Amino acid sequence: MTAPDIKAVIENYLAAVASGDGAAVAALYAADATLEDPVGSEPHRGRDAISAFYGGLQGEITTELLHARVSGLEAAFSFRVVTKAGDTSYIVEPIDVMTFDDAGQITSMRAFWAPTDMVVE
Amino acid sequence: MTAPDIKAVIENYLAAVASGDGAAVAALYAADATLEDPVGSEPHRGRDAISAFYGGLQGEITTELLHARVSGLEAAFSFRVVTKAGDTSYIVEPIDVMTFDDAGQITSMRAFWAPTDMVVE
Repeated sequence: MTAPDIKAVIENYLAAVASGDGAAVAALYAADATLEDPVGSEPHRGRDAISAFYGGLQGEITTELLHARVSGLEAAFSFRVVTKAGDTSYIVEPIDVMTFDDAGQITSMRAFWAPTDMVVE
Repeated sequence: MTAPDIKAVIENYLAAVASGDGAAVAALYAADATLEDPVGSEPHRGRDAISAFYGGLQGEITTELLHARVSGLEAAFSFRVVTKAGDTSYIVEPIDVMTFDDAGQITSMRAFWAPTDMVVE
C-alpha cells in the first residue's frame, strides 16, 4: 500500500481541532489511541475519551501549523492555537509528537507545553 | 533538590553541537543515554557512541534555537543547524525530543527530520 500522507493528516487534525467537533477529531485517531496533553498528565485512551477531551474545549478556536517534521510514521510539529472567549484570546504554541498506523490514523499524541507558555491578550 | 533548568540544558546542547567537539556534547548526556537521529534509525547508546556521532559532523556548524517547549523532565524543540563546507551551506530545521534525569543530563534524544527537509544554498 502507499505510505500515508502524514503532513496532510496533521493539517486535517488542526482543522478538526478548530472545528470544535470532538467526534471529528477523534475520528482521525485509531480506536485504541492514546492522548497525553500536556506531557506528564494521565493519558486518555480510546476514541470516546479522546472525543470528550476535544469536545470539552471552549470558545472560538483557530489553529495554524508552524513547523512540521515527519520521520516515517512519526511526526513532531509546532502550531499556534488561539482560543477566543469573549474579548480575551488565549494563545499557546505547543509542540505535538504523534505516531501513526499504516492507514494514517493517529495512534498516539503527546503535547509538549506548559501553562506558563500561555499568552493572554 | 531543585528541578534542573531544562531550557538552559537545551541552549548548552546547541552551543556544544556548534563547537564540533563530540566529547563536549556527549558530556551533556547521561552515561547510558540513547540518541536516535533521525527518528527511525538505529539508536546510538552510551557516551562513547554519542561522542563519535557528534564528532563525525563535518564543516563549520552554527545552531539557533527556534522554539522550545518543556513539560517536566521532557522537552521538544525546533532549531536551525547550518553546516558550511566550502562555499556550500546545508540547512536543516529538525525538531528534537529529549528526556532528562533529575540532574538535567539528557537520557534520550530523538531527532525528527528527513533528508528531503534539507536546504542547500
